[in-house]
Amino acid sequence: MTSQIFAPGVQQVLDTVGIFVFALSGGLLAVRKNLDIFGIAVLAEVTALGGGVFRDLIIGAVPPAAFENRGYFFTPLVASLVVFFLHPEVQRINRTIQVLDAAGLGLFCVTGTAKAHDFGLGSVADIALGMATAVGGGVARDLLAHELPSLLRWDRALYAVPALVGSSVVAVLIALDRLDGVTGTLAALTAFVLRLLALRYDWRAPRAWHRGSGSSAADDPA
Amino acid sequence: MTSQIFAPGVQQVLDTVGIFVFALSGGLLAVRKNLDIFGIAVLAEVTALGGGVFRDLIIGAVPPAAFENRGYFFTPLVASLVVFFLHPEVQRINRTIQVLDAAGLGLFCVTGTAKAHDFGLGSVADIALGMATAVGGGVARDLLAHELPSLLRWDRALYAVPALVGSSVVAVLIALDRLDGVTGTLAALTAFVLRLLALRYDWRAPRAWHRGSGSSAADDPA
Amino acid sequence: MTSQIFAPGVQQVLDTVGIFVFALSGGLLAVRKNLDIFGIAVLAEVTALGGGVFRDLIIGAVPPAAFENRGYFFTPLVASLVVFFLHPEVQRINRTIQVLDAAGLGLFCVTGTAKAHDFGLGSVADIALGMATAVGGGVARDLLAHELPSLLRWDRALYAVPALVGSSVVAVLIALDRLDGVTGTLAALTAFVLRLLALRYDWRAPRAWHRGSGSSAADDPA
Repeated sequence: MTSQIFAPGVQQVLDTVGIFVFALSGGLLAVRKNLDIFGIAVLAEVTALGGGVFRDLIIGAVPPAAFENRGYFFTPLVASLVVFFLHPEVQRINRTIQVLDAAGLGLFCVTGTAKAHDFGLGSVADIALGMATAVGGGVARDLLAHELPSLLRWDRALYAVPALVGSSVVAVLIALDRLDGVTGTLAALTAFVLRLLALRYDWRAPRAWHRGSGSSAADDPA
Repeated sequence: MTSQIFAPGVQQVLDTVGIFVFALSGGLLAVRKNLDIFGIAVLAEVTALGGGVFRDLIIGAVPPAAFENRGYFFTPLVASLVVFFLHPEVQRINRTIQVLDAAGLGLFCVTGTAKAHDFGLGSVADIALGMATAVGGGVARDLLAHELPSLLRWDRALYAVPALVGSSVVAVLIALDRLDGVTGTLAALTAFVLRLLALRYDWRAPRAWHRGSGSSAADDPA
Repeated sequence: MTSQIFAPGVQQVLDTVGIFVFALSGGLLAVRKNLDIFGIAVLAEVTALGGGVFRDLIIGAVPPAAFENRGYFFTPLVASLVVFFLHPEVQRINRTIQVLDAAGLGLFCVTGTAKAHDFGLGSVADIALGMATAVGGGVARDLLAHELPSLLRWDRALYAVPALVGSSVVAVLIALDRLDGVTGTLAALTAFVLRLLALRYDWRAPRAWHRGSGSSAADDPA
């Protein structure tokens, strides 16, 4: 079981923190969309657990971990209560949340890649599912909130690329049989730091190449 | 098999009525969105069967019941034809449909919770999946129709909470080993009556707590 | 294994062409929505592989073929690069792409129906999943791009009906034990030609029946 990168207790603490922060981002979007407390809870659950549920359905790990571990399920509910009562304060510490969210991104791309490998998938699928674990919940959040997924928007700092790099590092470590607590942590830190740099310097991915005088607006048809 | 709460023939009749009414709501939304008969059929199928398919994928009951039972599949097609030819009349009996929809909500949260339990999930997951069985089709309907899910909207009467109560009653009954046709029916009636009361008195869930003079519109950013 | 309609090498070539063309349509939508290269790649992957992944989850073929076959995964990435650098040229050959897309539609409804049958589903489910294989990726593409699914829109030429016909022909061939490379090709050609005719003559499905003087706009409420 390479997915046991960390000692079980450490893993549970890290997962809980990551789930909590992802859930906060779901709850805050629900508040911005003027949803009720039930909508806050749904978006918190979906953001926190959606990526892992998608990965588990694809690899055949049913029921998904999110439905087996009560801690995974209750953590977003706690985050929902925090958002419900304290959302102005939570929004005020937005930078802190972005840093913690980056940490969750780093953690989940690493553990997601390792879990896919445990279920016998090839390295390319491992990387794709590691990324999906990290970013899938945010996509599900935006779909349910009736928004263009933030992940796909050009005007947002890189989010998926740090996860892609972290997942790829893990895949290489697995291929070299060198994945353990230390190297796994380094892979997560790589994704974490890349995401922080992307936020700090507003790194973006390029849009489609427009030759000549064409602007992107010019070929924006109905 | 606790999921055999009702005699098989009774279950099939109840399921068919519930599926038919859910399908009507999908078909009517398709008409309002100006979709063609194919869109009517797709939204009818998805509304009627989506919640159960989601539950079955999560618990590993593949192929899902919706793909094994021809009656489950053809019932929404009949509802689609009814909507196609008679939608003004169907809309006129909207109150009747809301009552039948509430009955479907009560039925599906009960049978969904029991089926999840049959597949060995814990009580929290049972409750979550019972709710998802009852409300998931409506969410899929709204996503496909490109609308903010009605389930999450603040300005709609409680829909998920009655299902949550019904599912929770079933989970308690299972824990007490008291789930049978009579108690299961009472659980479904509880959800049904709660939904009718929510409709009658326009009960809503609270939105996030706004302290001071802040209004919800005030923190509605881009 | 009836799903081996074609020799494996032929199948791989056909699948690759179909996946490539579907991926182009996903990438082009991403360009129109002003997404970055990562968004182009995501929509290309989802459009090309989404229908098959849905089918495989429903029939219990996990991990889905898209996650087992590297060629399936890399083909949309190649299409993404083509769109990224050459999208004005790609848009200029739109008619060619529509023809190839129709060929992909014909191919995937046939192979999807046959694969569902291999996993022991009944003929109605086979037909539904054959159709879903052919059209599901396009629905996922539109959902992620925050658009009403083109499949459901009244103002587009028939897309699902050709797939429905192709899938139904395959189901009949299976029932008669006559599905082979020749008859499977004829079924795919039937769907292909129907789609081309629908494009050529702008065939559409009817909208709901409006009796009296009512127009569809008149019952288009909020």
